[in-house]
Amino acid sequence: MKVSRADTNADAKTDGRLDHTLPDPALRAAILDAADAAQDRCVALLSDLVRQPSLLGEESGAQALMADRFAALGLAVDRFAVDEAALSALPGFSPPVLPGAYEGRENVVGVHTPRNATGRSLILNGHIDVVPTGPAELWTTPPFEPRIADGRLYGRGAGDMKAGIAAYTAAFEALASLGYRPAAPVYLQTVIEEECTGNGALACLHRGYRADAAVIPEPFNHTLSVAQVGVMWVRLVVTGTPAHVLDTSAGTNAIEAATTLAAHLKALEIRWNAPGRRHHAFCGHPHPLNINLGRIEGGEWASSVPTRCNVDLRLGFFPGQDPKAVRGEVADALADALRNDPALKGVTADLVWAGFQAEGCEIDPTHPLMTMMADSHRAVRGDEPRHVALTCTTDARFFALYGDTPATCYGPEATRIHGIDESVSLDSVRDVTRVLALFIAGWCGLEAA
Amino acid sequence: MKVSRADTNADAKTDGRLDHTLPDPALRAAILDAADAAQDRCVALLSDLVRQPSLLGEESGAQALMADRFAALGLAVDRFAVDEAALSALPGFSPPVLPGAYEGRENVVGVHTPRNATGRSLILNGHIDVVPTGPAELWTTPPFEPRIADGRLYGRGAGDMKAGIAAYTAAFEALASLGYRPAAPVYLQTVIEEECTGNGALACLHRGYRADAAVIPEPFNHTLSVAQVGVMWVRLVVTGTPAHVLDTSAGTNAIEAATTLAAHLKALEIRWNAPGRRHHAFCGHPHPLNINLGRIEGGEWASSVPTRCNVDLRLGFFPGQDPKAVRGEVADALADALRNDPALKGVTADLVWAGFQAEGCEIDPTHPLMTMMADSHRAVRGDEPRHVALTCTTDARFFALYGDTPATCYGPEATRIHGIDESVSLDSVRDVTRVLALFIAGWCGLEAA
Repeated sequence: MKVSRADTNADAKTDGRLDHTLPDPALRAAILDAADAAQDRCVALLSDLVRQPSLLGEESGAQALMADRFAALGLAVDRFAVDEAALSALPGFSPPVLPGAYEGRENVVGVHTPRNATGRSLILNGHIDVVPTGPAELWTTPPFEPRIADGRLYGRGAGDMKAGIAAYTAAFEALASLGYRPAAPVYLQTVIEEECTGNGALACLHRGYRADAAVIPEPFNHTLSVAQVGVMWVRLVVTGTPAHVLDTSAGTNAIEAATTLAAHLKALEIRWNAPGRRHHAFCGHPHPLNINLGRIEGGEWASSVPTRCNVDLRLGFFPGQDPKAVRGEVADALADALRNDPALKGVTADLVWAGFQAEGCEIDPTHPLMTMMADSHRAVRGDEPRHVALTCTTDARFFALYGDTPATCYGPEATRIHGIDESVSLDSVRDVTRVLALFIAGWCGLEAA
Repeated sequence: MKVSRADTNADAKTDGRLDHTLPDPALRAAILDAADAAQDRCVALLSDLVRQPSLLGEESGAQALMADRFAALGLAVDRFAVDEAALSALPGFSPPVLPGAYEGRENVVGVHTPRNATGRSLILNGHIDVVPTGPAELWTTPPFEPRIADGRLYGRGAGDMKAGIAAYTAAFEALASLGYRPAAPVYLQTVIEEECTGNGALACLHRGYRADAAVIPEPFNHTLSVAQVGVMWVRLVVTGTPAHVLDTSAGTNAIEAATTLAAHLKALEIRWNAPGRRHHAFCGHPHPLNINLGRIEGGEWASSVPTRCNVDLRLGFFPGQDPKAVRGEVADALADALRNDPALKGVTADLVWAGFQAEGCEIDPTHPLMTMMADSHRAVRGDEPRHVALTCTTDARFFALYGDTPATCYGPEATRIHGIDESVSLDSVRDVTRVLALFIAGWCGLEAA
């Protein structure tokens, strides 16, 4: 849902509303204590999750773990695979990186149904998939062996975003430990493929999941996201003209051509970031739109001029831009380069749009979801949470754009996500558990377990 | 052997010597006719060889075919694997691309022993290995299905250099069809790994093969090679600093760093080709030393800033340059770049010197091998053969530098070697057969079969 400014309630963000909707001080203190008491189990779950190398296509171990955990919480467990054929017709679908390979790769949803639904329903969503580790030998300790040091837990996916999943689970458990359950439907979702398509989250929508709000505890350091860029992946399949190295000038080196084409897109990136064409949420950002040269593979033999080089690029674009139009701009920029750059003589480039074709989105910062999340943050951390416009994508777009479910991200402080020695602050994870427990209590209301 | 000018016989290249050493006109005509008659079998052998995809490590099918063919010619067949441990101590050894994997990958030598050795001994050498095909779908027909069209045979390795092997075999057969055999030892060698190390040819030296001359029918269009550059392979293992694409400036992209480093070596290439520092044999060449970016592989994920990128480079250098000194220049240039180029901040590069570490070499153009090859060429083609300084390496360096065996290349006209739709002219192959048959008769002398 694109929330327009006209829809908002300017009075929602008031002290009065905070006192009205969050639990009273005594219960609030009890909930915070219960969240603290849940921390050991939270860290244990996070460690167990990091031990599961839930790379693309290898999510099943981590998902089985979460299904068991949700069942142990007394939730109904719904497991379902991505129906690629059905999803491919939906808005928001991205062509998969592993087409035809969704068999056995399930989403897991823990469904809480209250006795009396008196509050507002809620989706707590996290992605179970993690990005590749990079060279494992560069890690201080192996990336799928969780390591705790200096108050941080290290491992691939520790921050992005297994900590968030552990935190929302611990928040639910903390309320249960006090004898409470939410007084509204709550859906605890762990989804696949957030890191390349979002088709896991889209499958949840297609399954029918909707709520009055969705929170995704992505590791953005206790900020509340109000917007996120669109993200697009494209592979350039670059073909040069091969030759023997005894006369390299006889051919056009496909590797050099591919990096030249990527450089032309860097020029596009500069134009796209120009102040005059920015989306309002990103006006103050130093460099919101990045074009990343993420993967390359070309040539076969040191002594042959390479004929073929594949380059995988990731491009950001603003909310409100149509992905189709963005693809057109990229294709035009590359065609111009191929026509006019003498270094690209004889070169062809095919564009393969697989992976993210993800629109940007935003949420009204004064929506009750945002104000109550801010209230909860303030109650735990004392300060005002920063609003951020994200320069990456998250699954929030599905809820917001196609699911009529306002969504924001709020999660722990993590470093080096997608990098080497990724880690998350465990104190920060505890605070996220506290914030989410308060928020569930306030948003959904509580009933006796 | 580096032949110095002082060793040469200035009188060798005379009409008198041509009449003296090549067969008399009647026999010469008979040999040319016999070579022509061998053409169908020559093309059939070439086709059979092209059908064998003798890529690195997959040479056995083609080698079995040649061993059978040599046996059918009445030659003693010597098959032997490369002894990596023994060879690694020898000058000219190159660290293999597939270390520890020489088991079962044999050289084949067909050994002719005359009844009375009255002439000069000869090695006819060709490499059986071929370079990778590049994307097979870019070929007009599949690269290992020989196709004849417009007087040319198409296929990977057709020119480089299965045609040469077929031609020297046909030359030997042509003499046999007239009732003659060479009056000196002749060694027909088909070797592995010419395209990446030369360790196949080095193993022949280590096996003890020496002769008064060696001819390698590489596809250099009826030229006689008088020099060749040194060639070196190096892999750059480039490590950047990884990050999430939400802030690409937090990391240094290893792919971009790798291509930046390669660009710094292009600057080295320009300095190396400067007129003032050229070897005399390459003074007139437009651009003798090429640095080729042949292969690249980096990153794992479009939405991660890549940490690691491997680049395989091939560098040419002049005869007389010590490979160790060249390695030092390359390492220094890269270290300078890493120290001084702000785009390479935080980047490290490890250098792996595997594959060619091949010295350049030359042969005195007035050596009797050269003059008699020129005589033979002239008798077949009517014109004077061009002398060329090769901007690539060949196995000739082993014979010349470490085997006390003067060596040159003389072979057919081929196009797109190491490229797509490689082909060789069949008329040209027939002329190579004719030239080699005459040369064998002249150099070795003949005796009745």
